[in-house]
Amino acid sequence: MDFNIESYLLEYGKKAKKAAFAMAQAGTELKNKALATVADALIKNTEYIIAENDKDIAEAVNNGIRPAMVDRLKLTAERIAGMAEGLVQLCALPDPVGETIEGFKRPNGLEILKKRVPIGVLGIIFESRPNVTADAAGLCIKSGNACILRGGKEAIHSNLAIASVFSKALAEAGLPADAVQLIDKTDREIATGLMRLNKYVDVLIPRGGAGLIRSVVENSTVPVIQTGTGNCHTYIDASADFDMAKKIVINAKTQRPSVCNAMETLLVHKDIAKDFLPAICAALKEKAVEIRGCDETVGICGDSVVKAEQSDWETEYNDLILALKVVDNIDQAIAHINEYGTGHSEAIVTSSFSAAEQFKREVDAACVYVNASTRFTDGFEFGFGAEIGISNQKLHARGPMGLKELTTVKYVISGDGQCRG
Amino acid sequence: MDFNIESYLLEYGKKAKKAAFAMAQAGTELKNKALATVADALIKNTEYIIAENDKDIAEAVNNGIRPAMVDRLKLTAERIAGMAEGLVQLCALPDPVGETIEGFKRPNGLEILKKRVPIGVLGIIFESRPNVTADAAGLCIKSGNACILRGGKEAIHSNLAIASVFSKALAEAGLPADAVQLIDKTDREIATGLMRLNKYVDVLIPRGGAGLIRSVVENSTVPVIQTGTGNCHTYIDASADFDMAKKIVINAKTQRPSVCNAMETLLVHKDIAKDFLPAICAALKEKAVEIRGCDETVGICGDSVVKAEQSDWETEYNDLILALKVVDNIDQAIAHINEYGTGHSEAIVTSSFSAAEQFKREVDAACVYVNASTRFTDGFEFGFGAEIGISNQKLHARGPMGLKELTTVKYVISGDGQCRG
Repeated sequence: MDFNIESYLLEYGKKAKKAAFAMAQAGTELKNKALATVADALIKNTEYIIAENDKDIAEAVNNGIRPAMVDRLKLTAERIAGMAEGLVQLCALPDPVGETIEGFKRPNGLEILKKRVPIGVLGIIFESRPNVTADAAGLCIKSGNACILRGGKEAIHSNLAIASVFSKALAEAGLPADAVQLIDKTDREIATGLMRLNKYVDVLIPRGGAGLIRSVVENSTVPVIQTGTGNCHTYIDASADFDMAKKIVINAKTQRPSVCNAMETLLVHKDIAKDFLPAICAALKEKAVEIRGCDETVGICGDSVVKAEQSDWETEYNDLILALKVVDNIDQAIAHINEYGTGHSEAIVTSSFSAAEQFKREVDAACVYVNASTRFTDGFEFGFGAEIGISNQKLHARGPMGLKELTTVKYVISGDGQCRG
Repeated sequence: MDFNIESYLLEYGKKAKKAAFAMAQAGTELKNKALATVADALIKNTEYIIAENDKDIAEAVNNGIRPAMVDRLKLTAERIAGMAEGLVQLCALPDPVGETIEGFKRPNGLEILKKRVPIGVLGIIFESRPNVTADAAGLCIKSGNACILRGGKEAIHSNLAIASVFSKALAEAGLPADAVQLIDKTDREIATGLMRLNKYVDVLIPRGGAGLIRSVVENSTVPVIQTGTGNCHTYIDASADFDMAKKIVINAKTQRPSVCNAMETLLVHKDIAKDFLPAICAALKEKAVEIRGCDETVGICGDSVVKAEQSDWETEYNDLILALKVVDNIDQAIAHINEYGTGHSEAIVTSSFSAAEQFKREVDAACVYVNASTRFTDGFEFGFGAEIGISNQKLHARGPMGLKELTTVKYVISGDGQCRG
């Protein structure tokens, strides 16, 4: 490349840091006013945004990108209105900033308050869909942060258009335009540089596929929140209600198979395998689900089931494919989940109190379900409003990450001259 | 090296993961009983531990290590009793595990509880003082975690002795011996390997100097909690009570200059510089503090002050040296702190309500003090009991990290067959 990445990114970093200072001082009313202004501006600039989006679409078609991916890129007046509506909804959510989480007085008279404050500068690296630009920026603004966004090459014109409309509207409303910056180059080295901008970026959040997440975890020296990958299981206990189990299995696998909270492996207690498996396999087949089963499954269901390989237990298909295993008991089910799961969403269907309690206690995951579909792991479904992603790491945030998860704390200590003796 | 680091560490990882599962299920009584058993065992094994420690001391003396460092290594019956006492004190602290932090019911009938659970496997890389082995392991056990410890070469015999006594006593009390493992090799490659053991280590906490912290941040793919470095400031506002200001400055700088919450730079409002500086400089001189001042300071105090270089604003001396700068106003003080501070502990001395409020609001640090010494940033002083370190990053934990900060959360969702529609 013919320019210096470090000094190039440094400019983004410095501007973001400065904007973050102003954002941290901004009150809720101002932030809400700004989000409403941005929402209006997106609608008003629909034509401009679609014209820029057309450039990305043309390039994608030229490059022979498959239609499903082109559709993900495509912005319509309706989709832009959806982004705007998302920002308006953010206005209605409570502002997490300024909350005093704890407060106490020490024997020496010091008063210690633990207050919720914005994190500062968030780096967000994302792929494909350009609506992430508006969604992520909106969450950052409402939570009092500044952000540096780095989207994919395939959506660069759309992303830049949305970000510039966003920034201008922020400034119009009285917030710093630099609170939302989108990096205008998409070289891979720029992403790597952003991952090492420790002086200016407080936290990095990757949004995208397993490859992106892995690359960020591998290369980032900035603290990262991992989101996404979900190898989710549903375990049908011997005591399960068959109708409920069937309903939940079908929902978790087929309602939207491409997402991270969809089920990938079904575990069935051996005592009910002979009765349950034929019924569930037939129901899954009706939904065009390919089943890859263990030996017992193949033994019971015959040719309609493909024999599973070791890799099937490890795979997040994100597709109409299901791994299916018969287990001896709940201990084996939990051990399988803790071995192969990605700590995302895990469910048991049971009518036994002790089985439910054991599953809740022993499964190590962000979200553990009893008698419900794993598909509920989602900021809206949890009532948090919009989410920036679903964390499946254990540091800072676990599960759906809403506005609160984009904040940190500050201890504020007041005294009258206390010294340590 | 003549062995395979990866498979070597994998063994530690697998054992730790297995132990973490058992630890997460252990109740408070069992954990407390185990800690008391370890405390007893440490006392009973005083002779053995001191004999092993003697080997480290002999080596240190042989290698010409300076006496202050040798003293840090040295274990006496009294210091071992101190470690044991630390564990007994942990028993008295509330167990953070099992707490339901939030709970709510969704319109569709799903009940969502947010529960506090152990993190799992903590990797702790530390330097020098062997008492960290017992202190850190004790905190991990009480918070329901397993740990893999990696201490410095200079204390390897002492660390191994303490860890083996610890493990045996855990097993005796009914907890897994592998909940506390100390890596028995001290090659640098082992530390780097531990930093990349993502499948088994959930969080890495370095405890030591700036070099260690930097190396961990640079190399770790496991999520890290940064602790430590403190370039702390005290700002004396124009409205400050001089006696209070003097007392706080002397305490923050001289009560224990080697630690991270000691003051490194003093900022003084220009309106009081002529009156305040001569008095405070004289008092600091009495405590043998070397002062490195800005031009105004040198102008007022003369030869008793060395002229500060740019690097003085950036340096954590951990010594009886103080950088001193006259500022035009509180805005300049806050800007200086936000530019050069490490986000650790920052103080203002003032009698002005608006100055106090502005400082608390605008300074970006883990702990912000009004009219008190920065020296209070400490788990014991905050009333948390023992601490694993002081985080100056914004992710997960900020400020003194006690037992709560060694936990994560799990969402537990109970339903009666809910599916997503």
